[in-house]
Amino acid sequence: MNRFGNAFRLSIFGESHGPAIGITIDGLPAGIPLCEADFEADLARRRSGARGTTPRREADRPQLLSGLYGGHTTGAPLTILFANEDTRSGDYAELTHHFRPSHADRVAAVKFGGWNDPRGGGSFSARLTAALVAAGVVAKRVLPASVRFATRLAAVGGEQDPARFEHVIEAACTAGDSVGGLIECCAEEVPCGWGDPFFDSVESLAAHLLFAIPAVKGVEFGDGFAVAARRGSENNDRILDAAGTTATNHAGGIDGGIANGNPIVVRVAVKPTPSIALPQETFDAATGRVAPLTIRGRHDACVALRGAVVVEAALAIALADLALRERTNRPRPTQAENG
Amino acid sequence: MNRFGNAFRLSIFGESHGPAIGITIDGLPAGIPLCEADFEADLARRRSGARGTTPRREADRPQLLSGLYGGHTTGAPLTILFANEDTRSGDYAELTHHFRPSHADRVAAVKFGGWNDPRGGGSFSARLTAALVAAGVVAKRVLPASVRFATRLAAVGGEQDPARFEHVIEAACTAGDSVGGLIECCAEEVPCGWGDPFFDSVESLAAHLLFAIPAVKGVEFGDGFAVAARRGSENNDRILDAAGTTATNHAGGIDGGIANGNPIVVRVAVKPTPSIALPQETFDAATGRVAPLTIRGRHDACVALRGAVVVEAALAIALADLALRERTNRPRPTQAENG
Amino acid sequence: MNRFGNAFRLSIFGESHGPAIGITIDGLPAGIPLCEADFEADLARRRSGARGTTPRREADRPQLLSGLYGGHTTGAPLTILFANEDTRSGDYAELTHHFRPSHADRVAAVKFGGWNDPRGGGSFSARLTAALVAAGVVAKRVLPASVRFATRLAAVGGEQDPARFEHVIEAACTAGDSVGGLIECCAEEVPCGWGDPFFDSVESLAAHLLFAIPAVKGVEFGDGFAVAARRGSENNDRILDAAGTTATNHAGGIDGGIANGNPIVVRVAVKPTPSIALPQETFDAATGRVAPLTIRGRHDACVALRGAVVVEAALAIALADLALRERTNRPRPTQAENG
Amino acid sequence: MNRFGNAFRLSIFGESHGPAIGITIDGLPAGIPLCEADFEADLARRRSGARGTTPRREADRPQLLSGLYGGHTTGAPLTILFANEDTRSGDYAELTHHFRPSHADRVAAVKFGGWNDPRGGGSFSARLTAALVAAGVVAKRVLPASVRFATRLAAVGGEQDPARFEHVIEAACTAGDSVGGLIECCAEEVPCGWGDPFFDSVESLAAHLLFAIPAVKGVEFGDGFAVAARRGSENNDRILDAAGTTATNHAGGIDGGIANGNPIVVRVAVKPTPSIALPQETFDAATGRVAPLTIRGRHDACVALRGAVVVEAALAIALADLALRERTNRPRPTQAENG
Repeated sequence: MNRFGNAFRLSIFGESHGPAIGITIDGLPAGIPLCEADFEADLARRRSGARGTTPRREADRPQLLSGLYGGHTTGAPLTILFANEDTRSGDYAELTHHFRPSHADRVAAVKFGGWNDPRGGGSFSARLTAALVAAGVVAKRVLPASVRFATRLAAVGGEQDPARFEHVIEAACTAGDSVGGLIECCAEEVPCGWGDPFFDSVESLAAHLLFAIPAVKGVEFGDGFAVAARRGSENNDRILDAAGTTATNHAGGIDGGIANGNPIVVRVAVKPTPSIALPQETFDAATGRVAPLTIRGRHDACVALRGAVVVEAALAIALADLALRERTNRPRPTQAENG
Repeated sequence: MNRFGNAFRLSIFGESHGPAIGITIDGLPAGIPLCEADFEADLARRRSGARGTTPRREADRPQLLSGLYGGHTTGAPLTILFANEDTRSGDYAELTHHFRPSHADRVAAVKFGGWNDPRGGGSFSARLTAALVAAGVVAKRVLPASVRFATRLAAVGGEQDPARFEHVIEAACTAGDSVGGLIECCAEEVPCGWGDPFFDSVESLAAHLLFAIPAVKGVEFGDGFAVAARRGSENNDRILDAAGTTATNHAGGIDGGIANGNPIVVRVAVKPTPSIALPQETFDAATGRVAPLTIRGRHDACVALRGAVVVEAALAIALADLALRERTNRPRPTQAENG
Repeated sequence: MNRFGNAFRLSIFGESHGPAIGITIDGLPAGIPLCEADFEADLARRRSGARGTTPRREADRPQLLSGLYGGHTTGAPLTILFANEDTRSGDYAELTHHFRPSHADRVAAVKFGGWNDPRGGGSFSARLTAALVAAGVVAKRVLPASVRFATRLAAVGGEQDPARFEHVIEAACTAGDSVGGLIECCAEEVPCGWGDPFFDSVESLAAHLLFAIPAVKGVEFGDGFAVAARRGSENNDRILDAAGTTATNHAGGIDGGIANGNPIVVRVAVKPTPSIALPQETFDAATGRVAPLTIRGRHDACVALRGAVVVEAALAIALADLALRERTNRPRPTQAENG
Repeated sequence: MNRFGNAFRLSIFGESHGPAIGITIDGLPAGIPLCEADFEADLARRRSGARGTTPRREADRPQLLSGLYGGHTTGAPLTILFANEDTRSGDYAELTHHFRPSHADRVAAVKFGGWNDPRGGGSFSARLTAALVAAGVVAKRVLPASVRFATRLAAVGGEQDPARFEHVIEAACTAGDSVGGLIECCAEEVPCGWGDPFFDSVESLAAHLLFAIPAVKGVEFGDGFAVAARRGSENNDRILDAAGTTATNHAGGIDGGIANGNPIVVRVAVKPTPSIALPQETFDAATGRVAPLTIRGRHDACVALRGAVVVEAALAIALADLALRERTNRPRPTQAENG
């Protein structure tokens, strides 16, 4: 399913080593100012460069193919294209039979009867997250300007002190290995009332998108898994005023699946990338035996580094979809106004 | 959004204290044997009765309104209705202004301009999970008979020893309080290849449904949050044979969002129910002041007890949707067969 | 597919001779006054009684199962149920092998492998249009009060003079036969701008619903098929003022798939009901031979009589869906206001 | 709404004078052979050239951006792009205030607050039908090879003799005018059982797409509007054998919304293009007065000429969507096989 969203609607496409990847956004209101430069900041956050990121470099310059006129959205579908440039498909030939552990290679081959594009992970590549980040930029324009995102790498390889992240990643690189990480994203000033029950709670929509990001294995909101160990009297967020301010924010800004006006907080567990330089003993369908596999090519040692902006984009997209839906849901007038 | 699913399609409706709740399932193949008694076992697992569950009793007898003929599904939409019987709406009058902390009362009033049904949580009530459980029963019939579910309460109030759960819940009840819990669900023999990228990974669909269940605040697959602290060499699941058997199952049976043939494992954090007997200081819109609120009515002390079968139903529904979609996706013939 | 609509969302269910038929409407704004009596007028228009309509009588009293509280919609899904009362299933036993010509009996048996409910057409019965009419009543409440519908039977059996309709139908009844008809529906004061291109033009959404009504075989907007014979200079609707008033309305109020502010006009061709008293020579699977079939049971001689309100409901539903979507699409501010 | 389809899923984008138009197809099974040359024949049928078609020439060479590898579909989304080449945007400046009669100019300006792309009709341009035709080519590959389409121009300007079409068009061209036409499309060997009630009858899905094609104002199946004047005894298609062969095909191959195995026949009324060389008296928002408008630019005198292949594509797409859905619906085993 390459579609997501009911009112802010995405359609994603492309493979890592094909001509291009891209995304079409439908349902975008007309009159929003937008140009290619608007994408630069978030795409730069996703781009490689730092120690621990892949040496594959892409200009990642978005081409805006439709839906814009005179520097504003027109109300028609907006298509954003990224040409694939720095592809080295030769690196991947062996992987159609000697499947990389914990990669999509084998499941894709089974699912698609061997017809899938194996080069660089094909349509399973994290390369597609560039399109998600671009959609996130557009989503933020749909949200009220007051909504702000604060996203951070909360842990790397179990280390929670940001001052030590570089050392942890350096050690993994040196060892020919990779490390996982924890990303935290906070959205402030999300209006109370967003969320579309029963099925499309804020958590449901956000988690749906977050678990579409390659390498994500856990998602929690507010205090998340910690609440399972608590009593209600500890965990409840007492309401302090008419605006809904709460004494605590254990719920991460979401009650009953609906934003309550407090900051929305989500944490995402990112696994260590399975592509490591260390040889791994794994099954080779060509020989029918377990044999050491050495993965060549260029890879991230810590995908969580570049993943932070992707997580933020996913949350922004979920909120933009709910923001537009809310326009259809809102009653007029309220019961109080009605007498 | 009361809809879920692309091929196995749900439409849910109802409020806690209205005439009935129910669910319509569309996309169900014809010829599946089904009768009211088939729902008994799973509904019994959700029913109250044990210490720590609400004294509200419902027969929870499903009425099959459509889509059945001669004891088999017809291919037409199947509607399952549960009449609401043991309702005591008088218990809830105060809650339209003196909002319960961490409940949906306040956000629902804001979202719907005060027009929402406040009785017993209205459409936000966990009562609706009876409909999910019923849909889960039907979903299991769509799945191959070989797919088996094993679901357990993995922790209560932080306690992981099942022998101690009763004590933990008893203590919470005595204190007029509630406790959270951790539910683990495992689905075995899920065929390799299920999952519908980019957006509808197994994790995405399952998490979407799981986060629609009231009180769920965290979802993780396989080793989940633990993988964020690992290195790739530790976390990778080496493939051992042509069937895809892996030496470990850190991934919880899912690679690249697609089932890999190993057991699918998901863990869900359930918060302590916010309805507690202990008085809570919270804002009262009627007086404009923070004042002690005492919640009357009948409530669960540990919703995780009854939640296990709901989590299992959610996973079964996500898998049934993917199972039916897979029929459209599967290529014929495979590349190997093609020469 | 039992679903229709993106913002005003339907889910229909039920069979002619099962316990009940019904429909769930999701996406309905909260605070709309609604009660069972509101459905009476439109349901009465669909009810049998006149010469040429089936003697099957149903009270057709809608039960509102969810989504209402205190006489107003709550913002939660609204489910409307109609119990089936006057069913005589014995009339239909022969039809599982001696298929009625031009009925769904045979195609349903093929499609569903014989598992379909054959009684009274099962889920293919025109009985389900009661649910559509009920949804139409709700749809009209979503539309601005200024939107008015005028629907009429434009022809019966080729006769266009309403004064002669009764005679035409009487003659058909007497002959043990049935007659087709033409229904015209006009919606006035539909605001300019509704319609959701590329795929969801006003015509597309309305025709989708209209062709779901049993017996409909043709749909045209404005001057419809007549425009195929014209020149552009004859057919163009010249614009007369800033409000978009046009000198003619050949387009039936729709340009480029979008409402232009003029009356929306649609005409629908309804075939003569295939259930006739006259014996018909048709294949009998039990004997493998063509043999005379005499259809017993109670039937309409002119389904177009009762179909007018169904056509109106379909148009109202399509417009309500577009009305709610328009809330998400509308730009603010306009380019003119923007400077 | 730029999306269509449940199993064979389209997402369309682009404007007449923007960088490109295109379409993404999701849900396509893997392993289907496909290359750019496969699109040539159908695109040539849509291309201009004949008298009565626009002198605007586009190579209309499809770029296949994703979803292909080694000459076969991969199971991932397929994106087809057409660069816009021969654009002359200067021709359209006046039309933002002096709206062309019966064009989308005015309704688009109202709907999108003036932010729409006015050049060449923007996203309302018939240019987008190139993308539909391309999707139709892919749809035909999804259908069984036995399904054949026969499409013809059945009338031009009221003239039904093909030998006279050229004269009728020539006369319109000479007069600075345009003419409408009637297109008939027939699909043979469509398997009995396709169609997805209640809402997605074959007619509903096909009409939905057909009415999305610019200039279509009427759609009828089988004998269409003629059946409204008939009696049941005349209109019923008597079944002759176990295969469902019928003595007549008044129903156009569809009973109860489901294909019955006989040829599916649809007729589509296409209006004369509103772009004519003759001056037209219409409102000018710049002056607030009705004034003569002379439309410059390059236009078709009879869009029905190029529209035949678009109609065929629309029917093929609707059938492909139903074909894939049928894989999920089909019961196994049938009731007869079940004993």
